[in-house]
Amino acid sequence: MNKITLKSPVDMHLHLRQGDMLNNIAHLSAKYFANAVIMPNTVPAIADLDALDIYKQDIIKSFKFDNMTPMMSLFFRNYSEAELIKAKDKIFGIKLYPQGATTNSDSGVDNLDEAETTFKIMEELQIPLLVHGEQADDFVLDREKNFLPVYEHLAKKYPKLKISMEHITTAKALELLDRYENLLATVTLQHLSITLDDVAGGLFNPHLFCKPIAKRPEDRDALLNAALSAHPKLMFGSDSAPHPRSSKECCGCAAGVFSAPIALAYLVDIFDKNNSLQNLQAFISDNAVKNYGFKLLNKEITLEKKDFIIPNQYSDVVPFMAGNTINWSYV
Amino acid sequence: MNKITLKSPVDMHLHLRQGDMLNNIAHLSAKYFANAVIMPNTVPAIADLDALDIYKQDIIKSFKFDNMTPMMSLFFRNYSEAELIKAKDKIFGIKLYPQGATTNSDSGVDNLDEAETTFKIMEELQIPLLVHGEQADDFVLDREKNFLPVYEHLAKKYPKLKISMEHITTAKALELLDRYENLLATVTLQHLSITLDDVAGGLFNPHLFCKPIAKRPEDRDALLNAALSAHPKLMFGSDSAPHPRSSKECCGCAAGVFSAPIALAYLVDIFDKNNSLQNLQAFISDNAVKNYGFKLLNKEITLEKKDFIIPNQYSDVVPFMAGNTINWSYV
Repeated sequence: MNKITLKSPVDMHLHLRQGDMLNNIAHLSAKYFANAVIMPNTVPAIADLDALDIYKQDIIKSFKFDNMTPMMSLFFRNYSEAELIKAKDKIFGIKLYPQGATTNSDSGVDNLDEAETTFKIMEELQIPLLVHGEQADDFVLDREKNFLPVYEHLAKKYPKLKISMEHITTAKALELLDRYENLLATVTLQHLSITLDDVAGGLFNPHLFCKPIAKRPEDRDALLNAALSAHPKLMFGSDSAPHPRSSKECCGCAAGVFSAPIALAYLVDIFDKNNSLQNLQAFISDNAVKNYGFKLLNKEITLEKKDFIIPNQYSDVVPFMAGNTINWSYV
Repeated sequence: MNKITLKSPVDMHLHLRQGDMLNNIAHLSAKYFANAVIMPNTVPAIADLDALDIYKQDIIKSFKFDNMTPMMSLFFRNYSEAELIKAKDKIFGIKLYPQGATTNSDSGVDNLDEAETTFKIMEELQIPLLVHGEQADDFVLDREKNFLPVYEHLAKKYPKLKISMEHITTAKALELLDRYENLLATVTLQHLSITLDDVAGGLFNPHLFCKPIAKRPEDRDALLNAALSAHPKLMFGSDSAPHPRSSKECCGCAAGVFSAPIALAYLVDIFDKNNSLQNLQAFISDNAVKNYGFKLLNKEITLEKKDFIIPNQYSDVVPFMAGNTINWSYV
């Protein structure tokens, strides 16, 4: 196959930031994706509907040439039933960050027990719970693994609550995904492609440093195999998270990989190299619609088998695999 | 105890570089250490006696105010018996790098079987073998562990050859150390102090990025306990490896931690906090002399319990824990 057309690609986990960064990079997602779930860990976080409305308008204004449906999320706090009834039609889900787990998560949850009333209301109202599943204070390689019992607890206690394990990075998370019907998961491009070796095995590469950090080869391989075989509960979520070059190539490099503008081409390249192109449509869009039942913006993205050198920068942001050549280009 | 005097501290593993860097940093080791084993992975590597003589002279010239005995090492290649007979009195040992394992190791060994004749001659002549024990192409966290069978093979095959496992980073390496009489080991300040969490658990800290990379908390704790209890086969080797700030805070950060000028104060601080000051002299000097029987330069370094803010830079090199305060200062 030398050409492929993807129907309404969806990015189930996207950071668009604010201000100049938003204006510089959001249109790069709108160019390639039909819908995207927008993360609420802005500064301050999006934790009420007024802020959400304003942010959504800012996002739409920043698109330039293309349209995309931003599926908004609220930052988890203890919301009342009245608040959530009002919110339900405006949001895709609520994103929970354990306090301190990642960029701009200082106001995250430090005691899950106190959050259980809100979980109950979300379950009743059928509002999905999206989770950054890391135990923030644990050893960096164990944070996701140590959070799995929390997922298990929530999955059992709220069987009708859809719980998305965001950006999973381990084979163990995949195993858990298969054990509970109400668990879903997203996975990023980088966690399908790289291991800690690529981050810190040779020279350290700040542009591959993200949270959760890339893990072992056997984890990457398990995630990749699940994506390639169109695992019905696994969906693409880029976790594309731009930082200016100056925050990456410095003495305290920020966590986040920027992949939005190259993700589709890179995924086609990976799926093609693994003879699995027939399963990409499920991974990139169909699974998400089946699992959540939202309305897709109509969009077609065509790619052809032709070398594509990944640009060194978009605005002042260095993308995933900058300077590398892949074998598929956007038409 | 508010004061401690260390007698003739020895750094069993030191990188002094060449040219401007040598002139900028070697005197910082000479200020605090009596003797140091000098690593030969310069560019080109120190792989014959002429180069070694010149390098030794360059090192001594760079000392400025203080003296230190540089115990030279040759870069491992297949040396003839005649070469090694000539070399014996000029070198402390021969340093073996698996090809590609670390900075300037491209000319390292890619097939250990072919090196066995040289090991045999070294054993007969009683020239220690110093080893960067990592399987270069393996996953970054497994490289040391996967090299342990090589140490075991060499320890069994050459029972009279002293083999130093350089800069060990894992509890498993310590276990092996205890199993073979002819195995010895060095450990760095950073591997007694930090884990991968400190390198990449929050923001990424390029100044804590080194090879072998810092491992898990249980590894760090095992190494620290062995040092604090004056394990007779474990010796301090800083692996202090300066890189200019520009090679650390960039898009492909070089591996190496610079600790030479602050190592003794930091070690006193650690040993004091763990009520083990009485064992520091063994770790910092006595064990090395007992294990190898070399002649110490006479030097006394006195430290007092007084806050010390670690400088942000020495020349253009950022030291380990720059800007942090420890509780012991050089007098």
